[in-house]
Amino acid sequence: AILSIAGAMHYADLSQVYQELESERHEVFLKSIGPEIAADMIVQLPDSMIEEALDHFGPGQLKILFRELSDDDRVDILQAVGDEPRLRFLGLLGPEDEELTRSLLRYEHDTAGGRMTTRFGRIFASMTVKQAIDHLRRDQENTETLARLFVVDARGHLIGRVRLRDLAFNTWDTPIRDIMAEVGPEQRVLATADQEEAANLLLRYDLIVLPVVDEFDHLLGMITHDDAMEILQEESTEDIEKQAGIVGEQAEESYLQSTVLTHFKRRFVWLFGLALLAIASGYVMMRFEDTLMQVFLLSLYLPMVVASGGNTGGQASTMVIRAMSLGELGPGSASRVLWKELRLGAMLGLLLGLTIATITVLILPAFRPQLPEGVSYLLFGATVAAALSAQVVTSTCIGALLPIGARAIRLDPAAVAAPAITTLVDVSGMVIYFTVAQALLGL
Amino acid sequence: AILSIAGAMHYADLSQVYQELESERHEVFLKSIGPEIAADMIVQLPDSMIEEALDHFGPGQLKILFRELSDDDRVDILQAVGDEPRLRFLGLLGPEDEELTRSLLRYEHDTAGGRMTTRFGRIFASMTVKQAIDHLRRDQENTETLARLFVVDARGHLIGRVRLRDLAFNTWDTPIRDIMAEVGPEQRVLATADQEEAANLLLRYDLIVLPVVDEFDHLLGMITHDDAMEILQEESTEDIEKQAGIVGEQAEESYLQSTVLTHFKRRFVWLFGLALLAIASGYVMMRFEDTLMQVFLLSLYLPMVVASGGNTGGQASTMVIRAMSLGELGPGSASRVLWKELRLGAMLGLLLGLTIATITVLILPAFRPQLPEGVSYLLFGATVAAALSAQVVTSTCIGALLPIGARAIRLDPAAVAAPAITTLVDVSGMVIYFTVAQALLGL
Ligand SMILES: [Mg+2]
Ligand SMILES: [Mg+2]
Ligand SMILES: [Mg+2]
Ligand SMILES: [Mg+2]
Ligand SMILES: [Mg+2]
Ligand SMILES: [Mg+2]
Ligand SMILES: [Mg+2]
Ligand SMILES: [Mg+2]
Ligand SMILES: [Mg+2]
Ligand SMILES: [Mg+2]
Ligand SMILES: [Mg+2]
Ligand SMILES: [Mg+2]
Ligand SMILES: [Mg+2]
Repeated sequence: AILSIAGAMHYADLSQVYQELESERHEVFLKSIGPEIAADMIVQLPDSMIEEALDHFGPGQLKILFRELSDDDRVDILQAVGDEPRLRFLGLLGPEDEELTRSLLRYEHDTAGGRMTTRFGRIFASMTVKQAIDHLRRDQENTETLARLFVVDARGHLIGRVRLRDLAFNTWDTPIRDIMAEVGPEQRVLATADQEEAANLLLRYDLIVLPVVDEFDHLLGMITHDDAMEILQEESTEDIEKQAGIVGEQAEESYLQSTVLTHFKRRFVWLFGLALLAIASGYVMMRFEDTLMQVFLLSLYLPMVVASGGNTGGQASTMVIRAMSLGELGPGSASRVLWKELRLGAMLGLLLGLTIATITVLILPAFRPQLPEGVSYLLFGATVAAALSAQVVTSTCIGALLPIGARAIRLDPAAVAAPAITTLVDVSGMVIYFTVAQALLGL
Repeated sequence: AILSIAGAMHYADLSQVYQELESERHEVFLKSIGPEIAADMIVQLPDSMIEEALDHFGPGQLKILFRELSDDDRVDILQAVGDEPRLRFLGLLGPEDEELTRSLLRYEHDTAGGRMTTRFGRIFASMTVKQAIDHLRRDQENTETLARLFVVDARGHLIGRVRLRDLAFNTWDTPIRDIMAEVGPEQRVLATADQEEAANLLLRYDLIVLPVVDEFDHLLGMITHDDAMEILQEESTEDIEKQAGIVGEQAEESYLQSTVLTHFKRRFVWLFGLALLAIASGYVMMRFEDTLMQVFLLSLYLPMVVASGGNTGGQASTMVIRAMSLGELGPGSASRVLWKELRLGAMLGLLLGLTIATITVLILPAFRPQLPEGVSYLLFGATVAAALSAQVVTSTCIGALLPIGARAIRLDPAAVAAPAITTLVDVSGMVIYFTVAQALLGL
């Protein structure tokens, strides 16, 4: 019964059904769909579930399963299992597949080489259309997509591309050289480049496939549109998590699949480090005990002044980091960013300060709070406004500059976590608030 | 000189060069590349620059430019300009193009219909391979991609798909009906669906193109892989910005292209609202004046306890929101999420509390701070630890529950901004801290 339904289902849907099954039913499910269909389904599983799924098959079935996989998926799967099973599974591959797989395993999993497939349509410039079609027909089932075909010279250098439609709509004796289009030097990627760079090229140039080359421009493989979409999602997730102060790699684990311990490890580091840093804020507050004692009303506005810095700093860093990820900010744009955020911070700070001061002066007298001799509501409101403006301006600039600074010292800008900015400007906010209060209120 | 370089450049690169030019040079640049090349380049510009670019061309050149564009790009461009120019430009289109464009303009720009192209390979089930090839050859230049061809019945219902290679590698008298594959009901999208849904389907099913249908399953158009990648980037940016408390749409404006005023408008709302909310924290602090006066040492740990809640709450909401965006959390998963975050919050809170308490008890005595009669360092450390744990547990749960709650009342979960969570748990953190201190220290 499972089989008849499963046969009509897409591997992505099968994978979801599998993940929602209780683990005792995994074996029956896998056996009934068989190794051919299981192959594509297992690729879609979170990394942590792959080894267990493979263990339900015997060596003979695993041979079939691995033969069914495209080379990049096979490598993904082998990277997801332990060292011992990896060697065991490699031994089950045919000699050709084993050599290919071993060579692909040399690339880091998040590089262009680690994501490429070598199953692509490769034809020689010296062929005719008829020769090319015959050549492709011979291994059509081995080829992931024929939508774009790459043309190489006799020594394997990438020199052009043709579309399958160019073959289908031209006469059989046309030389490939006459119908091929050039592949610009910018429309290829080094095998050692970060996968993010590869995906951004596919996005920028609207490509279905991106050729992957070595440093001598030999064509090694290609990255397909579907993998590029996955990379974009992974990289966005990576940035989002880093910015929230979550460390480590998502590793394709879904939220619910990850254990509490995994989540714990990814979150504790920042939480602990920032807790220590926050003690600095407390220390500043201790140092200004006298000021606070004299005008305890200051505490009513303390969290607001301090937190507004965190909010605006987080907004600024988020916008700058995203702009960097989208490739909008070149290395020379630091001063333009700073100039923009400086004006923005000033506008935000002034308007916020004025509004809060106005509200204060209008509403506060009704509550008759204690103010020291010689301090009017107006002066008190002006103090809060001045501190708030100063805090917002400095925090906006800090939020924008930290990611730029991180990149300058070759760190990932996204690693500048918003909570870190918040906690940092908490400290400066305390200093700013109490210093301004001392000066303006004559304490 | 510009022309000879420009002729070899990809439209994406041309667009970048154009954006970096001073605006006085735009006209020369556009004139020298001419309307055919300018068409594809203009599509890549930020929305705010499109109208100005088009204004450099006369009506005759604009006719050429609009004829050159694919239908979805034409619609994009018309959506980016004002009402008056839109009508004027529509008048420049041929009658067929105008009708098509008007019908596409009816869809919201961020729906599947708003992103689809109608220039796709459509063949009838009753054709043979030869008839299909002849049919496609006739309008091959009008067709965006032939990699996937959709098969319709006589009344235009979507009933299957074939790959171009199936045509190329089969004999000419094979009926299309025999070689077409089924298109599952889940591998199509309604024209009125959100663009995010469409992009997620392309991602999930590894598609090059996704067919777009109306409610009667008539084939209307298709969304291509390159547009799907763009949608994924847009939607991730939208989520990232919303979570940082930045409102409004990015609208394809780059960070540097947007004016300070635009940035200001997008950031001020949350900043102001949260500043008001933060006064609640200050109010709580005022209310506990006596407690703070009695043990002013409490202020050393106050920012830490409060901020740890914001940090862990932000982490929790970020993970839950991303998991929702990736489609990992169905509507029934609220209790599983809460149970996970509850255990996680307890682990994080306990370990954090214990560590901080240990450090306190070991280091604090060296500074000989004032503690009231009967309060030992150990008791004080225990108080901080208890408050910290309670704050972390509640904040983790609040951070996870708010996005789930937002979705339950049909709001976008990503609209639950991390700064809002931070500010909210600031208030609860103040209450928790002082209440625990009163209770345990006997104040
Ligand atoms: Mg995988
Ligand atoms: Mg891999
Ligand atoms: Mg593009
Ligand atoms: Mg692949
Ligand atoms: Mg990365
Ligand atoms: Mg990155
Ligand atoms: Mg556009
Ligand atoms: Mg559109
Ligand atoms: Mg996929
Ligand atoms: Mg396009
Ligand atoms: Mg398009
Ligand atoms: Mg959206
Ligand atoms: Mg969304």
